[in-house]
Amino acid sequence: MRLMGATMTTIRTGEVTIILPFRDDLTQHNGYFHAGGSSAIADSAGGYAAYTLFDPDSSVLTVEFKLNLMNPGQGDRLEAVGRVIKPGRNLTVCQLDVWGVTGNRRVHVATGLQTLMQMRPRG
Amino acid sequence: MRLMGATMTTIRTGEVTIILPFRDDLTQHNGYFHAGGSSAIADSAGGYAAYTLFDPDSSVLTVEFKLNLMNPGQGDRLEAVGRVIKPGRNLTVCQLDVWGVTGNRRVHVATGLQTLMQMRPRG
Amino acid sequence: MRLMGATMTTIRTGEVTIILPFRDDLTQHNGYFHAGGSSAIADSAGGYAAYTLFDPDSSVLTVEFKLNLMNPGQGDRLEAVGRVIKPGRNLTVCQLDVWGVTGNRRVHVATGLQTLMQMRPRG
Amino acid sequence: MRLMGATMTTIRTGEVTIILPFRDDLTQHNGYFHAGGSSAIADSAGGYAAYTLFDPDSSVLTVEFKLNLMNPGQGDRLEAVGRVIKPGRNLTVCQLDVWGVTGNRRVHVATGLQTLMQMRPRG
Repeated sequence: MRLMGATMTTIRTGEVTIILPFRDDLTQHNGYFHAGGSSAIADSAGGYAAYTLFDPDSSVLTVEFKLNLMNPGQGDRLEAVGRVIKPGRNLTVCQLDVWGVTGNRRVHVATGLQTLMQMRPRG
Repeated sequence: MRLMGATMTTIRTGEVTIILPFRDDLTQHNGYFHAGGSSAIADSAGGYAAYTLFDPDSSVLTVEFKLNLMNPGQGDRLEAVGRVIKPGRNLTVCQLDVWGVTGNRRVHVATGLQTLMQMRPRG
Repeated sequence: MRLMGATMTTIRTGEVTIILPFRDDLTQHNGYFHAGGSSAIADSAGGYAAYTLFDPDSSVLTVEFKLNLMNPGQGDRLEAVGRVIKPGRNLTVCQLDVWGVTGNRRVHVATGLQTLMQMRPRG
Repeated sequence: MRLMGATMTTIRTGEVTIILPFRDDLTQHNGYFHAGGSSAIADSAGGYAAYTLFDPDSSVLTVEFKLNLMNPGQGDRLEAVGRVIKPGRNLTVCQLDVWGVTGNRRVHVATGLQTLMQMRPRG
């Protein structure tokens, strides 16, 4: 995340937003954000959203995720929102959404689903 | 891809391999490759694999992909293999696999499926 | 759908609901609806939802779908809601949700995403 | 499965095949097998494949699955093969493939991935 310059901007119980500002080296030849950027911040947003519901000494593992890329990754920044839709003792399911934002204009860049596992320390 | 230091090493018809060498700034707090690295090179490997079968003046768009993260991203490098399993005039389906490699040891880090679209120039 | 006894109950532009009443031969050994029932009505609800936005002489094809089964398929009936979240000339993306309903009680049985293609007649 | 007339034909450690013979009430208006049939037998084949590796007193739960429908469901019968690609103490990942078979001709109807959970009895 640091490598790309992404920052976490909102942390609520079960919901986390991560922002990725536009940068030349994150774009494809056509000037849009690379899909890899969308999926990295979407995966992280979901992971942190799940973690807000986990035990403090546990860690979080992405089991799988699926992303539909619906519009080109355009705008001044990408905003990824991860939101827990099914918390669980072992497995948690998150909805992932990525928006391309320029001023007040928001384009729905991607939507997805993610399954995460709570890893508890042994002892 | 350049940002992470990834390089394409094998290009066959319908199959492309991309390698991501270990680098400290691509890892998580636990020393493993971040899942974002796996998914970025997997998505790219599938995209280029599909592109080997497309018209030269067309471009490729990832419609969606799904990745199961099966083992931690460990090793000297990650190898992502994208392989076309259903070529199509409009839509192409690829299998994605990511391996963590250290010497002769290969761990199956992730497997996935990806749907891609061939975008033809208008005119 | 006829085989299982499912019926379409709501048809709005971009949103369709299908209901599957409880029946002994749709359940597993544990008395819950079989996952196959959930996925069949979810896939159909999304397909019809997309179709409400298509040209009348076109047909609809499911390209792929993904479903997270979050709770056991319980209740007097299953309700599957398919809702278009990204209409498109070629490809359309739907959100799929399945609820297990008993009186006023609704349990979120499954959520998913689906990619569909509009097939136009040649001519 | 009984409702549709499907039967399990091969059971190996980590691999199960289920066959669904053609029947008029399993088809769509165009004469092809309905996608619901493919996904039901694919989900079941993966579930039983995982179960061959589980403790005898445990049960199996589909956490999620994703299916790409690559060709129309055609032929005298559908064959679904579920194959474990990552066994695990808690979670198991299966590859799912559905073939449409007529004599010696086999068409790749669908491919998918499935995550399953081993449910152990409490006590």
